[in-house]
Amino acid sequence: MRLSRYFLPVLRDVPKEAEIVSHRLMLRAGMIRQQASGLYSWLPLGYKVLMKVQKIIEEEQNRSGAIQLLMPTIQSADLWRESGRYDAYGKEMLRIEDRHEREFLYGPTNEEMITDIFRAYVKSYKDLPLNLYHIQWKFRDEVRPRFGTMRSREFLMKDAYSFDLDEPAAVAAFQRMFVAYLRTFRRMGLVGIPMRADTGPIGGNLSYEFHVLADTGESGVFLDKDLLDKPIPGKDTDYRGDLDPIFKDWTSLFAMTDEMTDEATFRAQVPEDKQLMARGIEVGHIFYFGTKYSDPMKANVTGPDGKNIAVHMGSYGIGPTRVVPAIIEASHDENGIVWPVSVAPFEAVLINLKAGDADTDTACEQLYAELTAAGLDMLYDDRDQPAGSKFATADLVGIPYQIILGPRGLKSGEVEIKHRKTGERETLPLSGAVERLKSLIEPQRMTDI
Amino acid sequence: MRLSRYFLPVLRDVPKEAEIVSHRLMLRAGMIRQQASGLYSWLPLGYKVLMKVQKIIEEEQNRSGAIQLLMPTIQSADLWRESGRYDAYGKEMLRIEDRHEREFLYGPTNEEMITDIFRAYVKSYKDLPLNLYHIQWKFRDEVRPRFGTMRSREFLMKDAYSFDLDEPAAVAAFQRMFVAYLRTFRRMGLVGIPMRADTGPIGGNLSYEFHVLADTGESGVFLDKDLLDKPIPGKDTDYRGDLDPIFKDWTSLFAMTDEMTDEATFRAQVPEDKQLMARGIEVGHIFYFGTKYSDPMKANVTGPDGKNIAVHMGSYGIGPTRVVPAIIEASHDENGIVWPVSVAPFEAVLINLKAGDADTDTACEQLYAELTAAGLDMLYDDRDQPAGSKFATADLVGIPYQIILGPRGLKSGEVEIKHRKTGERETLPLSGAVERLKSLIEPQRMTDI
Repeated sequence: MRLSRYFLPVLRDVPKEAEIVSHRLMLRAGMIRQQASGLYSWLPLGYKVLMKVQKIIEEEQNRSGAIQLLMPTIQSADLWRESGRYDAYGKEMLRIEDRHEREFLYGPTNEEMITDIFRAYVKSYKDLPLNLYHIQWKFRDEVRPRFGTMRSREFLMKDAYSFDLDEPAAVAAFQRMFVAYLRTFRRMGLVGIPMRADTGPIGGNLSYEFHVLADTGESGVFLDKDLLDKPIPGKDTDYRGDLDPIFKDWTSLFAMTDEMTDEATFRAQVPEDKQLMARGIEVGHIFYFGTKYSDPMKANVTGPDGKNIAVHMGSYGIGPTRVVPAIIEASHDENGIVWPVSVAPFEAVLINLKAGDADTDTACEQLYAELTAAGLDMLYDDRDQPAGSKFATADLVGIPYQIILGPRGLKSGEVEIKHRKTGERETLPLSGAVERLKSLIEPQRMTDI
Repeated sequence: MRLSRYFLPVLRDVPKEAEIVSHRLMLRAGMIRQQASGLYSWLPLGYKVLMKVQKIIEEEQNRSGAIQLLMPTIQSADLWRESGRYDAYGKEMLRIEDRHEREFLYGPTNEEMITDIFRAYVKSYKDLPLNLYHIQWKFRDEVRPRFGTMRSREFLMKDAYSFDLDEPAAVAAFQRMFVAYLRTFRRMGLVGIPMRADTGPIGGNLSYEFHVLADTGESGVFLDKDLLDKPIPGKDTDYRGDLDPIFKDWTSLFAMTDEMTDEATFRAQVPEDKQLMARGIEVGHIFYFGTKYSDPMKANVTGPDGKNIAVHMGSYGIGPTRVVPAIIEASHDENGIVWPVSVAPFEAVLINLKAGDADTDTACEQLYAELTAAGLDMLYDDRDQPAGSKFATADLVGIPYQIILGPRGLKSGEVEIKHRKTGERETLPLSGAVERLKSLIEPQRMTDI
């Protein structure tokens, strides 16, 4: 993408309304625009990151055996009356009347609707296990939306729902999502730590939150340091096999938020050299809640003995519009965002130091064509702007590699590569630039872990 | 995808509520489920088609230079008061109050919001031309929603918005979208005929609808037959060059709906052997409307002479949730849907004639692995079901090719391929099946036209 033809409205000033660093940086880097309280547009750069995050989620959901569909944003109030949540949900639910004065709502979550879909079509235990998911916009009418897309009113959510014949099968389904989540966050360059959690308003029996560590996290977290270095299950993991050993391995070490434990308990249970107290941002939440919805909504299947049984369900959420700022909270410096390659809006930016100079333009055009042909996701800063401003923009928007070419380098046949994360710079022959950049970037895509 | 692990709830009976064939087939093929009047879930098979349609739209929008972003579904009423449309829009607009009794609405379209984004960031003619698009859910509270997703209340829309300094530049932007639309529909296996149209409630100066011919179309259309065979502009079209010759070539031939002309005019203007009267389904609509929104909303840029000028705008819509049934209306037979390869949920289905028979299972597993490894988007019907039921399902859901293997074929080393569209069957050696299927499917993907 040529920057001269792109829409990247970076801001020089730090927006006043933004309290946390990810919100400030997303505004400054031209990723989002607030349209009203808690309502955001995703500008092209932000949208591209959001879609890379979404694609990783989809790939790992599909790998685990979950099947994607899409439910509408607007739901009938009657459906929520069946579960009793229409009245229970309170003011966070955005309630709507249509032109015929029928009651609807903007879905804050989809347990009721997916249960309705399930009971309409699935009648036999032979069609289980089943895990259906969608990625759709949700709305929760928070009293005081804040922190940008970290806590917006309209937000994107991947929510998966599992259906099983009994508790052991449902726990296996839960464990599949547990493993999928470990892989999902790692592929985004995050360390997502699963923490035993309260079941909260959705209710249920078994619940883990996934937290990313960041100084600005909302929750205090207590964990065993060994969790940080634990290798995640590989792509060859057999999701139809027994995942209990992986689950036990990850959950045997101490990891809880301050809602579930306190410092004294933590200190007593974890060896001193393994104790880590930190802040965490919740980026995912998985629940097993048994027959909480299948009972009142009569989502039954015929079991092997011919009797009707209410299915055991779980639900599994990740909020992509929350994950994006969480990545920024975990990965930035004083100059801007530092994207992990796998979710970066562009993998590298080619900086033309003297746009308008015929020789430099020609060389840059050719290099840009070669880098693109090599499969790299490139931005080309071809604007007629001072070099300092180009470097500042590249740093701010956080593109992992800058490849810099100007008249002087062209004369000596050399190009410079800057590593955004470390600040390291290397000068190399122009002819070797494509191969070098490929060799830096490809292993970090994490498509093959 | 193994059908035994998929979620494909096909219906035996023709649903009573469905008046048109696409609605009936989408329900029977397990593509959609109605959740309330005019509100649909897209079940996995339908969702997969919807995403293939969306991907083609995105590729052709990007090729033409349009840039993707994403605006929220919920918009502030105040924004619509600026253009005067909040009061003008009437009951089709879904109006919403939040917990603080502030007025919002579920966006039926996005002219106001995109103009707001534009005016916030773009100040100079140097940043033009600009075309921003998004693919987002919209809501129009129709009095009587019907025809399934062809006229639903919540629907997906690709809407692009162009911004230019003056009318000639805006017309060039219009022509870029005109060409992009020709390519978009052809890549979906459709013949999308551009028809001069009324500008309607959006207002403006220049407007074309794209219609797909189908016996069940809502509009009567009159056209010159030569339009049906006109080659579309190729992928090497220079979108930064002069597209006026292409535009003139396509629009010089007669093509209008019955809203814009009548039979007598048509008969008088078109040679008798070129006259075609048919029915059409509107699948796209492009507008140029000048400064209709930029004037009241003060979306100005500084021109070359330093003076402020209101930008000239156009908007360009395609409804993917409407395109899917339109494709079905244009392409089905008495046994079900006949998908063009480029939008088919799966390109081919491998039918195991005797699931449970060890030798057949082994041979099918191997063939399935080879077909998938060859890059074909495969469904594998591995269910323990009678062959007749498998054939009926494959026909109903419209997968372009069936590849059929059973104990008898296995003994003679032969496999059968059925072409869904023509009903043609060919028997060939098992060893040549993968290459044959690839050679049939690849040219029809139309990724390279």
